[in-house]
Amino acid sequence: MARFSFNQATAKFWPLPELVAGCAEAGVPAVGLWREPVAEHGLARSAALVREAGLSVSSLCRGGFFGADDWLEDNRRALDEAAELGAPALVLVCGGLFGRDLDTARSRVAAGLEALAPYALDVGVRLAVEPMHPMFCADRSVVTTLDAALALAAPFPPEAVGIALDTYHVWWDERVWSLLAGAGPRIACFQLADWILPLPADVLVGRGLPGTGHIEFPRFLAGVAAAGYTGPIEVEVFNAELWQRPGREILHETIRAYRACSPS
Amino acid sequence: MARFSFNQATAKFWPLPELVAGCAEAGVPAVGLWREPVAEHGLARSAALVREAGLSVSSLCRGGFFGADDWLEDNRRALDEAAELGAPALVLVCGGLFGRDLDTARSRVAAGLEALAPYALDVGVRLAVEPMHPMFCADRSVVTTLDAALALAAPFPPEAVGIALDTYHVWWDERVWSLLAGAGPRIACFQLADWILPLPADVLVGRGLPGTGHIEFPRFLAGVAAAGYTGPIEVEVFNAELWQRPGREILHETIRAYRACSPS
Repeated sequence: MARFSFNQATAKFWPLPELVAGCAEAGVPAVGLWREPVAEHGLARSAALVREAGLSVSSLCRGGFFGADDWLEDNRRALDEAAELGAPALVLVCGGLFGRDLDTARSRVAAGLEALAPYALDVGVRLAVEPMHPMFCADRSVVTTLDAALALAAPFPPEAVGIALDTYHVWWDERVWSLLAGAGPRIACFQLADWILPLPADVLVGRGLPGTGHIEFPRFLAGVAAAGYTGPIEVEVFNAELWQRPGREILHETIRAYRACSPS
Repeated sequence: MARFSFNQATAKFWPLPELVAGCAEAGVPAVGLWREPVAEHGLARSAALVREAGLSVSSLCRGGFFGADDWLEDNRRALDEAAELGAPALVLVCGGLFGRDLDTARSRVAAGLEALAPYALDVGVRLAVEPMHPMFCADRSVVTTLDAALALAAPFPPEAVGIALDTYHVWWDERVWSLLAGAGPRIACFQLADWILPLPADVLVGRGLPGTGHIEFPRFLAGVAAAGYTGPIEVEVFNAELWQRPGREILHETIRAYRACSPS
């Protein structure tokens, strides 16, 4: 499990101290954290908690939403938080359409990265542009493909701007395999979640643990390895039913799912 | 309204004879038909009904589903039906994943087109490969982008294999505008539906009339015109709430929506 990271969103209702203790006890080396539960527990206290438990933080979710009024301060604050937690990457959900003008919404993302990149380098945290599934284009992210995320990152040094690759969002795209080949140095965060059917009423929370759905995980893991990525592999699953179970149970089921599909 | 076509699926529960009479009375020149309601009314009777009303048939939905056991006979039958109705195009929903092997599912589509193209030329009906929104990749169509649909069509003469362009399925893709530029001769069917939020529990039936959602219709209409397409413009909206209203009301609301966004 050297490369496994348990993303906190997979056990949404598990309090941070219990999650950290549970992960440490299970031999999990890293966690992916979210800003809201970290803020709730206190930023400095959260940072101390994970450090003292011997865990590393593989990523912080999330910045982005470049259409919001306070996007600049909020993203700078998010970078500060990531730095304090020791997270090497801040995952960016870039924001939806706000109207009908896709080109404008997309150029807003490019401008946002330009404004943030120097600060990201200063604090030593990479901005990780997450391509999201096209079904979220209107309301969450106008960045819908790996291709587009790589193009947004391209003008910047890889240590300033990378991408967050989540299997759930990109699995349907036949260009992924060829794009991945050159994308190794840009992968700042790699997350696993499966596409399961039927989609629930709220499509945000209908993801599956790896192996329960339609995605070819061995192919993704091989593609990412061939690209030269050797970093953490997070499992991040938004699933309303899974969330109802005790945190420890979710963790152990996630570890089982990870082991079944991860490189031996 | 010279180019307007009312797709039958927009008023799903309106019996065919009433729909045809309503369209003729409203000065609608064309309809898009579906195989099931046509079969219910009788193929020959349906063909006579539309012909006698002076309507043309812009497309027949649908063939495809190349993973089904009887795909070959069924698609040949669908081409026969389109020919009898005078529909120039058979829309193909190419079928989902059936498992986890996307490449195999996609090569099945290519093989299906190869098997059907000669017969399509014989009966004078174009196969229209419909790229569908990536959220349908696992269960309805592994063809998820305009790019992929054009690549599947490319080996065949345009009069055998074209594409069905539905705004709802492709609007999120930034490559659409450049791809459209060269796609004019391949456009066998052009359909309008809007992306509205929130997505309903059944994402299949949550589309909006043009102008009610997030899609830039003027841009699509201009792009398709610049590509040289001068054929029918169908409005095809799957919307569970809209379907509850009387057919005549749906038709008139659709005409209003079409007029508000169509070329003057």
